[in-house]
Amino acid sequence: MKVFIAGIDGYLGWSLAQYLTARGHEVAGTDKFLRRAWVEELGSVSALPVFSIEERLTAFRARFGKSLIFREGDLLDYEFVRGFLEEFQPEAIVHLAEMPSAPYSMIDQVHAAFTHSNNVIGSLNILWAMREVCPDAHLVKLGTMGEYGTPNVDIPEGFFELEYRGRKDRLPFPRQPGSFYHLTKVHDTHNTIFACRVWGLRSTDIMQGVVFGTRIDEMGDDPHLSTRLDFDQCFGTAINRFCCQAVIGHPLTLYGRGGQTRGFLPLRDSMQCLTLAIENPPKPGEYRVFNQFEECYTIEELAFKVKEAGDRAGLSVDILHYDNPRKELEAHYYHPDRQNLIDLGYKPTHDVVAEMQIMLRDLIPHQARIMHKREILVPDIRWDGTRRRSLVIQQTAETFKP
Amino acid sequence: MKVFIAGIDGYLGWSLAQYLTARGHEVAGTDKFLRRAWVEELGSVSALPVFSIEERLTAFRARFGKSLIFREGDLLDYEFVRGFLEEFQPEAIVHLAEMPSAPYSMIDQVHAAFTHSNNVIGSLNILWAMREVCPDAHLVKLGTMGEYGTPNVDIPEGFFELEYRGRKDRLPFPRQPGSFYHLTKVHDTHNTIFACRVWGLRSTDIMQGVVFGTRIDEMGDDPHLSTRLDFDQCFGTAINRFCCQAVIGHPLTLYGRGGQTRGFLPLRDSMQCLTLAIENPPKPGEYRVFNQFEECYTIEELAFKVKEAGDRAGLSVDILHYDNPRKELEAHYYHPDRQNLIDLGYKPTHDVVAEMQIMLRDLIPHQARIMHKREILVPDIRWDGTRRRSLVIQQTAETFKP
Repeated sequence: MKVFIAGIDGYLGWSLAQYLTARGHEVAGTDKFLRRAWVEELGSVSALPVFSIEERLTAFRARFGKSLIFREGDLLDYEFVRGFLEEFQPEAIVHLAEMPSAPYSMIDQVHAAFTHSNNVIGSLNILWAMREVCPDAHLVKLGTMGEYGTPNVDIPEGFFELEYRGRKDRLPFPRQPGSFYHLTKVHDTHNTIFACRVWGLRSTDIMQGVVFGTRIDEMGDDPHLSTRLDFDQCFGTAINRFCCQAVIGHPLTLYGRGGQTRGFLPLRDSMQCLTLAIENPPKPGEYRVFNQFEECYTIEELAFKVKEAGDRAGLSVDILHYDNPRKELEAHYYHPDRQNLIDLGYKPTHDVVAEMQIMLRDLIPHQARIMHKREILVPDIRWDGTRRRSLVIQQTAETFKP
Repeated sequence: MKVFIAGIDGYLGWSLAQYLTARGHEVAGTDKFLRRAWVEELGSVSALPVFSIEERLTAFRARFGKSLIFREGDLLDYEFVRGFLEEFQPEAIVHLAEMPSAPYSMIDQVHAAFTHSNNVIGSLNILWAMREVCPDAHLVKLGTMGEYGTPNVDIPEGFFELEYRGRKDRLPFPRQPGSFYHLTKVHDTHNTIFACRVWGLRSTDIMQGVVFGTRIDEMGDDPHLSTRLDFDQCFGTAINRFCCQAVIGHPLTLYGRGGQTRGFLPLRDSMQCLTLAIENPPKPGEYRVFNQFEECYTIEELAFKVKEAGDRAGLSVDILHYDNPRKELEAHYYHPDRQNLIDLGYKPTHDVVAEMQIMLRDLIPHQARIMHKREILVPDIRWDGTRRRSLVIQQTAETFKP
C-alpha cells in the first residue's frame, strides 16, 4: 500500500517508516523537525543520538534497498499538504505530526496557543486536503487515551449506547482531557467525526496509551536508523524517563502518590497496531476508534518494574515521590476496553520487564549524554501556570494501596 | 457591576451594552469590526443601517448619560486582551466575539481554519488572561445549542448522570456539532471546563438558541443605537432572514423538508437571560451550562408564523422549499432542557408572532436596502465544500408531518 506519514522524523514516525517498508509498503512522509527544536528549547537532548535527516535517509536506503520519499514541510502550509498528497495519492495517511506533550502545552499562553494552532489546524488541513485530492484515502489519526480522562465508569472505544430518560442513542463517549495538549486531541476527534460524516472520508482514530521502548527489530544495529528517546519532563514519557534515570542512578521521579493508572504499550506493539489499522481500513464514510495499549498499570507499578529490570542489569534503582506538578487524580477507577485491535489480530507483548531490560541495555552506552542533562530530570512546569521544581514528598516509594 | 463585552459592536454585543448600562452596570468592551467585514465579503449589508463606532458611541453617551469604554482590538492579540482586562478589572466578561456562522465556516479551508483560529484561540486567550489578571471574574461564554446536534434522547444542560455497566458518573453530555463553526464552540466548551477545573476560574457557558428580533426597548428610536440585522445566507439566521424576505415579497427559503427543530428566542429574551447569568455568578471554580431559548420550533412552523405576521401587516408571503445546502436531519427528535434560567427567574416572551410584527414594522422602511441585495437570498454554500445555488424542490410549502 502507499502510506503517507506526517511527522516521519519523530519517535513513532521514523520507526513506522521502517516497519512498513520492511513489510513491503511504499512510504512517503513529511516533517518540519519541530520535535528536535522543542527538545532543544527545553535544554534537553534525545538519549539515543539522532542523526540528520540526510544521514537517516541514506542509512534507510542502504538497509531497505529503496528510498523513502521525504519532503520537509509544515501542515499549517495548506498548499504544501494538498500538493504533496495530490502527487503521492496515498491509500493511507498516518498523522503523527502533532505536538505530543501535556506539560509543554501548559507552560504559558504562547505554548498553549501554539499547541492549538499546530495540532488542530494542522489536522484540519489534512481533512480538507483529503476531501480535495484523495477522498478515498484512510486517515489513521493519532489520538490519545488521555482524551477520556479518568471517568468512574468503563471506557468504551469511542462510542457508547446511551439510555437516557427512556430513550436510546449511540453517542460519542464523553471526553475529559487533562491538559491543553489532550484538549487539542479531543478537538481533532470531533473534527474528524464530522469530516467522515459530511464528506464521506474514512478514519481510524487511535486512542493510544503511553508508548515506551528504544527499538523495533527492523532497525537492526545501525545507529542512524535508531529512533529518538526523550527523557525531559515534556517529551520523556513515564517508562522512557524512568529507564534513563535508572541508567545514571537518578531516583525515578514518581509524581504524587503514583496511583495514576494508564494504558501503556511497547514501541513494537504500537507499530503492530498502527499497521493492523492501515492494512484493515474502514469503509468509506466510516469513523472508528481503537483504544490502543498493551495493559493498564499504575505509575508506581511501572517504577517497580523498571527497578526490577535495573536489578537484573546490576543497576541500583531508587524510587522517590515528588509533589505532583499536574492536576490529576492520584487514585481512581480505570477500565478501558481495547477489543477492536484484538479482533484484528493484535498480539500484545506481555513481558514488560523484558522490554525494559532491552531499553536499559540500549541506554547504558549513552549514560554520559543523560548525565550531562541530569538537572532537567525533576519537573518544574506546573498545571497552575507557574514554574517551580517539584520537591521530594516521600523519601522512599511505598507500594500504593488504593 | 463592571462588565466587559468582547464583540461589543455585534448584533448581541451592541444590544447588551445598552441593556446593561440602562440597568446601572458599568460597561467596557472591544471589537475588531470583523462582522462588518464578513458581511461585506459576502456582498451583503445589514438590513438596519449600521453607523460608525464613533457615531454609535456619541449616541450612546447622549441616551444613557455615560460613556461606553471602548477600544478596538483583536482577541488574538494576547497582550491587548491581558492589558485591557488588567486595567478594567471586570467582575464579568461576556464573550460574544466569535465568528458565529455555520455556512461561513464551511466555505473552504481558509474559512474553516480562520474560524478555528479566531474562535478557539481567541477564547483560549481570554482564559489565560483571566488566570493572569482577573481570576475572580465570571466568564459568560456564548456557546450554541448547536453544540449538541440532534441526539435521539433528551438534551440536559451540559452534564448528565451516566449509569454504564453498573457504575455511575456525572459527565459532560456528548456533543455532535454540525459545522466547523459549531465544532469550534464545542472546542471552547472543553477548554473552558478545563480552565475552571485546573485554575479555579468560574464560567457560565450559554448554549443559546437562534436569536431573532430587530430591537430591545432600551434602544428607543435613535437609529444610531439600533443593532444590525443580517439577512445573507451566513449571518442571517432563520427568522431574521425570513422577515427580510417577507418585506420585499421574496419567498421564504425553507431548507429541505423544514422539519429541522431548534430552540429560538427573541433578542430581548437573550438580553434578559445573559443578564440573569451575569447578575447571578457561579462559585469560584464552578463551570455551569445554561440552555438558553424561549421554545423549540420547526423551521417550517416559524415560516408559517412569519407568514401570519406578514398577513397582519398586509404583506403577501410565499414559502418555498429549496434543496438543503447543509447536511442535517430534516426530521428528528428534539427535546432540550432549559430549567436553569427559569429557576433564576427568566420570563420567556411567548408571543412570537407579535415579535415578528415588530420586526416587519422596523424592516419595512428598509425594503430598498434588502431589495438591492435580493440576489443573495438563496444559499449557495454547501456542506460538501462546493458552491451551487439551491433549487426550489417544492413549489409550495406543505405543513410538515413528522
